[in-house]
Amino acid sequence: MTTWHLARGFRFAGIHSGIRPDPSRRDLALVVSDVPAAAAGVFTQNRVRAAPVRVCQERLPADAARGVVVCSGNANACTGQRGLDDARRMTVVAAEAVGCRPEQVLVCSTGVIGQHLPMPAVEPGIRKAAGELADTPAALDALAHAILTTDTRTKVVTQEVDVNGVAVRLTGVAKGAAMIGPNLATMLAFVFSDAAVAAADLHALAGRAAEGTFNCVSVEGHTSTNDTLLLLANARAGGRPLRGEGLARFGAAVTGVCAELARSIAADAEGATHLVTIEVEGLRDDAEAKRVARAVADSALVKTAVFGADPNWGRIVSAAGYAGVDFEEKDLSLWLGDLLLYHAGTPQPFDGATASAYLKRERNVHLRLRFTLGAGRCTFWTCDLGYEYVRLNAEYTT
Amino acid sequence: MTTWHLARGFRFAGIHSGIRPDPSRRDLALVVSDVPAAAAGVFTQNRVRAAPVRVCQERLPADAARGVVVCSGNANACTGQRGLDDARRMTVVAAEAVGCRPEQVLVCSTGVIGQHLPMPAVEPGIRKAAGELADTPAALDALAHAILTTDTRTKVVTQEVDVNGVAVRLTGVAKGAAMIGPNLATMLAFVFSDAAVAAADLHALAGRAAEGTFNCVSVEGHTSTNDTLLLLANARAGGRPLRGEGLARFGAAVTGVCAELARSIAADAEGATHLVTIEVEGLRDDAEAKRVARAVADSALVKTAVFGADPNWGRIVSAAGYAGVDFEEKDLSLWLGDLLLYHAGTPQPFDGATASAYLKRERNVHLRLRFTLGAGRCTFWTCDLGYEYVRLNAEYTT
Repeated sequence: MTTWHLARGFRFAGIHSGIRPDPSRRDLALVVSDVPAAAAGVFTQNRVRAAPVRVCQERLPADAARGVVVCSGNANACTGQRGLDDARRMTVVAAEAVGCRPEQVLVCSTGVIGQHLPMPAVEPGIRKAAGELADTPAALDALAHAILTTDTRTKVVTQEVDVNGVAVRLTGVAKGAAMIGPNLATMLAFVFSDAAVAAADLHALAGRAAEGTFNCVSVEGHTSTNDTLLLLANARAGGRPLRGEGLARFGAAVTGVCAELARSIAADAEGATHLVTIEVEGLRDDAEAKRVARAVADSALVKTAVFGADPNWGRIVSAAGYAGVDFEEKDLSLWLGDLLLYHAGTPQPFDGATASAYLKRERNVHLRLRFTLGAGRCTFWTCDLGYEYVRLNAEYTT
Repeated sequence: MTTWHLARGFRFAGIHSGIRPDPSRRDLALVVSDVPAAAAGVFTQNRVRAAPVRVCQERLPADAARGVVVCSGNANACTGQRGLDDARRMTVVAAEAVGCRPEQVLVCSTGVIGQHLPMPAVEPGIRKAAGELADTPAALDALAHAILTTDTRTKVVTQEVDVNGVAVRLTGVAKGAAMIGPNLATMLAFVFSDAAVAAADLHALAGRAAEGTFNCVSVEGHTSTNDTLLLLANARAGGRPLRGEGLARFGAAVTGVCAELARSIAADAEGATHLVTIEVEGLRDDAEAKRVARAVADSALVKTAVFGADPNWGRIVSAAGYAGVDFEEKDLSLWLGDLLLYHAGTPQPFDGATASAYLKRERNVHLRLRFTLGAGRCTFWTCDLGYEYVRLNAEYTT
């Protein structure tokens, strides 16, 4: 375990409650702030929002949050009124166990859609987790495991930054996005900090942090019903509430942690053998650059070409072409790694064997699309598409 | 060969020119109308348009088209000025061979992107095809073969309809959409008719025919640089130019032929084991219904579930949720075949084994999403996603 900077005043737990049949598999996590914390969230844009997402949206931003309860193995999505009742009940049980009001507890779920939560397992599980809360790396690790679905590894990123002479700590933890069949794709991410930040500032900062990070990761473009980013800041580092430059510095640190978590999610997408970084520059604004990057990232033809180490660059250029962004071919040049394949609308002679060797050799592949229409840019992460993706998403049968 | 209704006054040819190395593989097609024909087209919405698409767009709609020359194995896309010169040269050679002006000839290409056409093979190929033109089913079959890329079968649909007492014939032929790796996905479709129709009417009719047919087929959502639908009508059936009810009747026949071709394209998508028909109804307008249908059709998670015979309906509902259409879960019900899985936002008890058996047994799978928000509807076709798709799109290496 690398050295983790645990934000002060937070305790963590991750236990097996019985949502999953395998007793060695943790499936319920709890995090508690010893003192009331500012809290904010960013949620899925899907019209179909899971019950816990609705409950969080009702409660955020908040001045005095005390914790988050999370279960994995069941998404509590498409579950109607009973699902909402179950999500709220989770916060009631957690609040009783840690001694606060239910409204001070947030809730997340990830797993299969359309099944009701097994509350006879969940309720005692929450109480059990409350009994194991600790401010140790081992407890954080247990939490990081308990929120996983079919991720192959935990995702924890921590940081300590000096803000206005105060050492502020950020503890980030996430679970994988998309390609998470047999369960549905879901990304959950949390950043716990001991910084002093007003809830309204944390809310503004959360949206900006997600924009260039979690919103720039795609596995197969299937937006989940449960995607959630939660930020909690409990002021235990001391100092006055951050404003101005200090707030900006803290915001940059949050974005940095989110970027690292986002990359680790794309790199751990199921069945992936390559992390693909797509750099788009020179469009009229960042939004246009993001549209192009996302079209390339979501193209099954691009992703299978990377998997097969095939430098079939026409697939990339044509994906850019249907992104809904206005350009002419002469405005576009394309690099694969350092190799220029297409320059100002004209194909370039290149050695196919060298290009293919690059795709075979590198675990991290770079595509660069340069336009000549402005200063808009975007960095986007995705992964390749191979047999393992199909196996994982097809071979499970109810 | 079933009985084909060949539109009067058209001659067809399909030959091997040498674009493809395999001498048994036809790769160049020509169709000629003995008399000038009204012509119209519908083209890809991709910003990156192949050279032949640009040439057709310059020339259509037209009152006096004489033919179409098509090559397969090379898309002539992303090929700059030289690509445009080559496309125009194809029409010059064809015009010389059949005795008309180059502007009266249309041109299409399909195949790999970013490579220049081998004109030393293409030019004599066009002359050879001109020498084999015939108004026979065998000649039409040769043309249908010559336009294929990795389709597993030809796609020909013909019809004879009575319009105002005149027996009008339609001869439709197409090649497959998407999933066409190692070459890039492209759909080409042609409807040749002996009806008398003004070019402007044919143009209006072409857009409507494509809207509910070829624009409602998706394999992996990758819009090609070359997609083209061309309609030619040469008036050889006799009668006065169609108007009013007669024109509407002819339009319906064109749409019917296009729908049949579109379905055959989805059913023959590479690696597909299921044709998936998605019926969406009850949204505010048809455009909303189409957005939802397309989101479901393009979801890799939905497609792998169908491949794996997994009735994991949460993937379908959540894909509908990110289509960008406003609805609440209570507005939506979902059927798989005759099985109600989700009713007014609440999961329904169903037998997973029965649902899985339906997916295993049926080559044609039906998904029905019913909303309660209006009268908008759409029928959309797609296919499943399995190992063969990955193999075909990944294993080719330049």
